[in-house]
Amino acid sequence: MSNFTGPIPTPTVPAPDIVRCAYLELVVTDLAKSRAFYVDLLGLHVTEEDENTIYLRSFEEFIHHNLVLRKGPVAAAAAFAYRVKSPAEVDAAEAYYRELGCRVERRKEGFTKGVGDSVRVEDPLGFPYEFFYDVEHVERLTQRYDLYSAGELVRLDHFNQVTPDVPRGRKYLEDLGFRVSEDIKDSDGVTYAAWMHRKQTVHDTALTGGNGPRLHHIAFSTHEKHNIIQICDKMGALRISDRIERGPGRHGVSNAFYLYILDPDGHRVEIYTQDYYTGDPDNPTVTWDVHDNQRRDWWGNPVVPSWYTEASLVLDLDGNPQPIIEREDKSEMAVTVGADGFSYTRPEGAPGEAAEGFKLGAQV
Amino acid sequence: MSNFTGPIPTPTVPAPDIVRCAYLELVVTDLAKSRAFYVDLLGLHVTEEDENTIYLRSFEEFIHHNLVLRKGPVAAAAAFAYRVKSPAEVDAAEAYYRELGCRVERRKEGFTKGVGDSVRVEDPLGFPYEFFYDVEHVERLTQRYDLYSAGELVRLDHFNQVTPDVPRGRKYLEDLGFRVSEDIKDSDGVTYAAWMHRKQTVHDTALTGGNGPRLHHIAFSTHEKHNIIQICDKMGALRISDRIERGPGRHGVSNAFYLYILDPDGHRVEIYTQDYYTGDPDNPTVTWDVHDNQRRDWWGNPVVPSWYTEASLVLDLDGNPQPIIEREDKSEMAVTVGADGFSYTRPEGAPGEAAEGFKLGAQV
Amino acid sequence: MSNFTGPIPTPTVPAPDIVRCAYLELVVTDLAKSRAFYVDLLGLHVTEEDENTIYLRSFEEFIHHNLVLRKGPVAAAAAFAYRVKSPAEVDAAEAYYRELGCRVERRKEGFTKGVGDSVRVEDPLGFPYEFFYDVEHVERLTQRYDLYSAGELVRLDHFNQVTPDVPRGRKYLEDLGFRVSEDIKDSDGVTYAAWMHRKQTVHDTALTGGNGPRLHHIAFSTHEKHNIIQICDKMGALRISDRIERGPGRHGVSNAFYLYILDPDGHRVEIYTQDYYTGDPDNPTVTWDVHDNQRRDWWGNPVVPSWYTEASLVLDLDGNPQPIIEREDKSEMAVTVGADGFSYTRPEGAPGEAAEGFKLGAQV
Amino acid sequence: MSNFTGPIPTPTVPAPDIVRCAYLELVVTDLAKSRAFYVDLLGLHVTEEDENTIYLRSFEEFIHHNLVLRKGPVAAAAAFAYRVKSPAEVDAAEAYYRELGCRVERRKEGFTKGVGDSVRVEDPLGFPYEFFYDVEHVERLTQRYDLYSAGELVRLDHFNQVTPDVPRGRKYLEDLGFRVSEDIKDSDGVTYAAWMHRKQTVHDTALTGGNGPRLHHIAFSTHEKHNIIQICDKMGALRISDRIERGPGRHGVSNAFYLYILDPDGHRVEIYTQDYYTGDPDNPTVTWDVHDNQRRDWWGNPVVPSWYTEASLVLDLDGNPQPIIEREDKSEMAVTVGADGFSYTRPEGAPGEAAEGFKLGAQV
Ligand SMILES: [Ca+2]
Ligand SMILES: [Fe+2]
Ligand SMILES: [Fe+2]
Ligand SMILES: [Fe+2]
Ligand SMILES: [Fe+2]
Repeated sequence: MSNFTGPIPTPTVPAPDIVRCAYLELVVTDLAKSRAFYVDLLGLHVTEEDENTIYLRSFEEFIHHNLVLRKGPVAAAAAFAYRVKSPAEVDAAEAYYRELGCRVERRKEGFTKGVGDSVRVEDPLGFPYEFFYDVEHVERLTQRYDLYSAGELVRLDHFNQVTPDVPRGRKYLEDLGFRVSEDIKDSDGVTYAAWMHRKQTVHDTALTGGNGPRLHHIAFSTHEKHNIIQICDKMGALRISDRIERGPGRHGVSNAFYLYILDPDGHRVEIYTQDYYTGDPDNPTVTWDVHDNQRRDWWGNPVVPSWYTEASLVLDLDGNPQPIIEREDKSEMAVTVGADGFSYTRPEGAPGEAAEGFKLGAQV
Repeated sequence: MSNFTGPIPTPTVPAPDIVRCAYLELVVTDLAKSRAFYVDLLGLHVTEEDENTIYLRSFEEFIHHNLVLRKGPVAAAAAFAYRVKSPAEVDAAEAYYRELGCRVERRKEGFTKGVGDSVRVEDPLGFPYEFFYDVEHVERLTQRYDLYSAGELVRLDHFNQVTPDVPRGRKYLEDLGFRVSEDIKDSDGVTYAAWMHRKQTVHDTALTGGNGPRLHHIAFSTHEKHNIIQICDKMGALRISDRIERGPGRHGVSNAFYLYILDPDGHRVEIYTQDYYTGDPDNPTVTWDVHDNQRRDWWGNPVVPSWYTEASLVLDLDGNPQPIIEREDKSEMAVTVGADGFSYTRPEGAPGEAAEGFKLGAQV
Repeated sequence: MSNFTGPIPTPTVPAPDIVRCAYLELVVTDLAKSRAFYVDLLGLHVTEEDENTIYLRSFEEFIHHNLVLRKGPVAAAAAFAYRVKSPAEVDAAEAYYRELGCRVERRKEGFTKGVGDSVRVEDPLGFPYEFFYDVEHVERLTQRYDLYSAGELVRLDHFNQVTPDVPRGRKYLEDLGFRVSEDIKDSDGVTYAAWMHRKQTVHDTALTGGNGPRLHHIAFSTHEKHNIIQICDKMGALRISDRIERGPGRHGVSNAFYLYILDPDGHRVEIYTQDYYTGDPDNPTVTWDVHDNQRRDWWGNPVVPSWYTEASLVLDLDGNPQPIIEREDKSEMAVTVGADGFSYTRPEGAPGEAAEGFKLGAQV
Repeated sequence: MSNFTGPIPTPTVPAPDIVRCAYLELVVTDLAKSRAFYVDLLGLHVTEEDENTIYLRSFEEFIHHNLVLRKGPVAAAAAFAYRVKSPAEVDAAEAYYRELGCRVERRKEGFTKGVGDSVRVEDPLGFPYEFFYDVEHVERLTQRYDLYSAGELVRLDHFNQVTPDVPRGRKYLEDLGFRVSEDIKDSDGVTYAAWMHRKQTVHDTALTGGNGPRLHHIAFSTHEKHNIIQICDKMGALRISDRIERGPGRHGVSNAFYLYILDPDGHRVEIYTQDYYTGDPDNPTVTWDVHDNQRRDWWGNPVVPSWYTEASLVLDLDGNPQPIIEREDKSEMAVTVGADGFSYTRPEGAPGEAAEGFKLGAQV
C-alpha cells in the first residue's frame, strides 16, 4: 500500500476475530548477541533454533513461539502476528485487507516454523501484520518451576507501535475489533497515544504518536514486581545497566509496573506486570491529560528523551524498511519535557498545596 | 566547640560502647503537615503526642521512639541519638567528649520524653549527638499484623550526615568505635562518602561529602521491596509524586533497595531494605570508584542534582542552626554529572563492548 | 425444577453470552460479624450498606458489587450472578432456562441494588443462577493506593459449586458456553471436579463432586503472593487462626497460590493469585489423576477433611434451602485420604526413587 | 565427656567471644544425591569440592563455607562451628572447655579446608562444637545477580539442637555468652524450647526439648517470602514434594516465614526469612505458652509429628554417633497434639468468641 496517510475506510466484510497478540518477528544483526540478551539475560525459552533463526517462548506459552529472532542486515520488525479464533478467520483477514487495498500475502505453510496457514499484510499504517490460527503446540512450562528464573517472563503481553496520526490508527484498529482501554490527549483534542485490546488486558497493542511506522517496543509479563527488579539487578551485575533505558516504575496508563530495556540492536523490550481486567463490554476508558506528570510514570519520574525519539524500523513484505512519515501533530515530548514543556503533578483543586509541581531536580 | 575543621585527636579515655542509631529529633515548622506525612502517609506509629511534639516509632521497635517531631521556627535536625550498651556508657560518652573539648550537656531526666539519663554534645563535626541507655519500653508491634500497612516501616536503619571533610569525619567515627563497611573514592585519594556501622548492618550513619554539618537523610527499613513500591504508589495516589526525589532503585553501595522522599519541610527520608550482614570483625570493606556509574544506583539511573545539594540544617545545643562550612575537596556531583562529569558503566576489560558507557538519554 | 438428577437436554435456543462471574449474594446470620470479616479483616470496599444488607466490591471492580451480604435466618448462598455481554443476552438467558423447564424469575428492576434488568433461575443442578447486563458503575479504585491494604483483594475470581454428578454439571455448563480448563479424574473414568471459564482465567466457576447443590467457596484475587500471606498473618494477630481452614499453598490445578478461610457463618472464601491465561480457543485442558498427591496442593500438603465435607446451602427462588442430593460416585476424600486412600507423589518412572511417596507424617 | 546429664558448672575463665554460627559439617551417605539437593535444588554455591567433600556457601557469605557435606557411612552432624571474634578467642574456647572437663581437640591447621586454627569439643550436651577465627575469604556474591536463583539462599541463619533438658542446656549456653530471645514454657515451669543468639537475630542456635543430642535442623535465609515459595514450587516440579516436611508458614516464635525440607539422608533444612533485630542489651524476651496453638505456626497450621520426633545423629570427635539420652520432661508433642494434647487459639478474654478453638479438621 503506497498511501499511509489518507483516511482509512471501514471494509464491508467482517473484521477477523482476533484473539490476542501472539508473536513478533525481529530482524537482528548479530544472532549470538541477541541470543545472549533474550536467552541468557531474559531467560526466554528456546523452542527451536538454527544458525539464522531462534524461536523463543515465554514460560506459560503453549504455542510455538512469542518471538522470532532472525538474522538480517538491518535491525527491524518483520511481523506483528496476531492469533485469530479459527482457521476461517484467516480467510476473513485476507478478505478484509484485500478490500482495504493493502498488499496481502497468504501462505498456507506459514511464514515461520511452527505456524501454519497465515496471511501477512502491509497494513494501512505501514505495519507488517500477520494473522494465523494454526500453530504447533509445545510444552507449556507453567509448573516447570525447576526452570523458573528469578526474573522469569511468563507471557507475551503486547506490542507498541509508533505512528504519526494516532486517531487515524485508532479508527483503523477499532474497525479491526480492538477496543480502547486508555488514551492520552490534550485539551485541544490532540491524541498522543492510545492503548487497544482484544484479550482481557489493557492492550494487545498501543499506538504511540511519532514518526512512523516504527516498532516502539514489545512487552513481556512477569508474575510479580520483584521479578522485574531482578532483571535490573542482573543487568547491573552484567555491567550493562546502560541498556536499562527507563524505569522500573509504575505506569499511570495501564497501572502496570514496568521496565524498558534495549536489546543489542536497540530494539526496545518492556517488562510489565499487573495491569487490570478489561473484558467487560463497557470497560471504562481512561483518558489522561498529556500534561499530567503521572500519566507515564505514576511516581512522576521523568521519561527520558530517547524513549520518545528512538524506535525500530519495520519491514514491508519484501523485507525492505518502510519509509518513515513524520508526525504533524504536536509531540508529547515537546509539550511536556524541557523548557517549553508543561506538566503538573496535581490538578488545580487537588489536596496538595500548589496547582502545579515538578519533580524537584528531576526534570530534563 | 568552635573549630569544626582541624584534626580531631583520639581521646585517651575509652569510647562509649554504642549499640545502634536509635532516634532522630527533627524540628518541623508545621506539625500537622508533618503528622500527615509521617503518620498518615508513612504509617509510623504514634507512641505519644501533644500539641508541640510527636513521638513516633517503627513497627518492630520496642523503645519509646525512633523519631521525634518537634514544632519550631526553623526546620532542622536537633539530635542524632545513639543507644549505648549500659548506663555506664553514658558516663563514658560524657568523659569522651569532654576530653575532645566539645560542648557537652548531661541531663539525668533526658532530653525527650521516654528517654532517661542522656548526654548531648556538639561533636567535632558540628553535629548534635546524643547518647543514652535508659529508655521506656513500649509495645513492640512485630506481630500486630492487624496494624500492618502495605508500606510498613519496620525499623530505623540509619542516619546520613553531610560533612565537608569525609576522612576527618571518618577518623573521628572510627575512634568512636564505628567500622567502615563501604566508601566512595577516586584515584587521587579523595573520599566522597563513607558508610559506618555499629549494629550488624551496613551502617548506623554515613558521611556524605558536602557543605556541612547538615542532615542528609534518615532511613527506615521495610521487610520487602514491594513495601517500598507501595509508598511510591500511595504518593502517586495522593498526587504528591513531586515529593519523591530519587528512586526507587538498587544501591550499588550497601546493595539495598531504596527510595528517597521529602517531608513537608524538605527533610529527606530514605526507605530502605535488604542490605547485608556486617557483624564479622573482618567484614570486607567495599570501595567504589566515584566514576562507577552503578555506585549509587546499581541500574545506572541518574542521581538528581538536588540529592547532592540539598540537606537539612542541624542545631547546636542552644537550638541555633550550626553554620555551614564549605567542602574544599572535589564534589561528587561535579566529577560525575553533566558536561564536566565522568562516569563509566563498565570498567575496562569488563564483558561489555565499550570501556565506558553512559545511560542513553538519561544523564543530566 | 424438581428433578436435579436426570440428563440435561441442550436447548435449541442459543446460550446467553456470559462475560464473567460478577457477584455472589450470601445470606449471613449476623451482619455485624460478617462486616467485621469482609470489611475489617479482608478490606473489601463498601459501595452501599443499610441495616440488612452490605454491598461490597474488590479494589479493581467498577460494577456496583461483587458480594452482597444479606441478613437472614439461615446462612446460605442466594445467587450466583454472571454478567452477560448485552441487554439482549438477559433475554437469551430467560429463553434458555425456560426451554430447560427451569423455574425462572425476571425482574426489570433487578434483584439487588445497583443491578438492573436480571433473570434468576433455579438451574438444572439446583443452583440459583442470575444473569444481568445493566449495572451501576462505581469508582474503580485501581490507583487509589491510599486505600490499598497489605492484603488487598483486587478482583472477584470465581465461584466453586458442589454437585453430586460432575459430568452432568459439566455438560450443562459446556452447553451454557463455559469451557473446561482442568479436571480431576481417575482411571475408571470417574470425574471428581472440573474447572470452567468464560473470562480468560482458569475458571469463573468450578464443580466439586459431593453432596449438593451447595456453595463450596467464592474466590477473590490479590496482586501478589505476599498479600495472601498478610491475610494469614492478620488472622493470627486477631487470634482467629482457627478460621484458616487450608493453606496457604500452591494449587496443582490452576497453578494459583491460594488460601481458604471461613467467614463467621462458615461460608468458605478463597484468596487466590496467579493462575494463567486461557483465552485461546484451543487452550490445553489439563487432566489430573485423583491419586496425584500434588493435584490440589502442588507441595503435597494434605487437604483437611472439612474442605471436602463442609459447604454452604443454596437457596431456591423463594429463599428456602435446596435439598441436598448425595453423590453416588466415589468421593475424592475417600479415595485419597486416610487408611483407605491412595495417593502418589511421583508417577512411576519419574526421577524420584520410589514410584509412590506420601508426605512424611502429614497424611491424615 | 561421659556425663551429659549432670549440672554444668560455670567456668572461672571467660567464655570465648562468639560472633555467630558459621558452618555445619554434615555426614551424608550419598554425595551425589546430596549435591543434587543442596546445589541443584537449593542453589548453594560450591566453593570447593572433591570426591568425598563439598564446601558450600550462601549467596552473601564471604567465608569459605557455611556447610560441609562429607561422605560417610552414617548420616550425622559432625560439627557445629562458630566463628569467634579473634584468634585469641580460640584459645579462650579451648581453656573454657578444658575447665569444663570436656574432650577438646585443637588443630592449628583446622578441621576442614578453608578454616585455620580451630578447637573442637564434645560439649556438656554431647554436641561437637567448633570455634575458629581464621578462615579463607572468598568472593562474596552479594551483587552477582547473574547467579541469583529464584529461591536463593543468602545467609546461614542458625542451628537447632535437640537436647533432653532444655534448662540445663540454656544455662550452659548463657554462660557461653548466648542470650535468650524467646522460649516455650508451660505453667508448671517446664521449658520445651529456647532460642539463643550471639549475632543480632533471634538465634544462632536453639534448643528443642527431646531425646538428644541430635541435630534438629540447619537454617538458611532468603531475602523475601516469595523465594521460599519458589523452593516449594520447584520441589513440586521435581516431584519431591514428599520431602517438604512442614510449612511454609509463619512462625509464632521468631516471627520468621519458614519452610522445613528434608535432604536425602533425612537431615532437616529450614528456609527462613524476616525475623527481627535483637541487638539491644535489653531486647525483650518472648515467652510462649506451650498450649498456644500459634506458637510454632502463627496461622495455627499443625506441626507434623515427624517434626517433633525425627532428628539427625551427632558425632563425637572420633566420628562415632553420640548415644541418645531420653527426655524426662513432658514432650511438647504429647501435651499439644492428638487426643491427649491441649491447645488454644485464643487466650481467655481475647476478642474471639470462644476461649479455646482448634483448627477445624486440621488437628492430627
Ligand atoms: Ca514480593
Ligand atoms: Fe508497553
Ligand atoms: Fe541512606
Ligand atoms: Fe477456588
Ligand atoms: Fe529454625
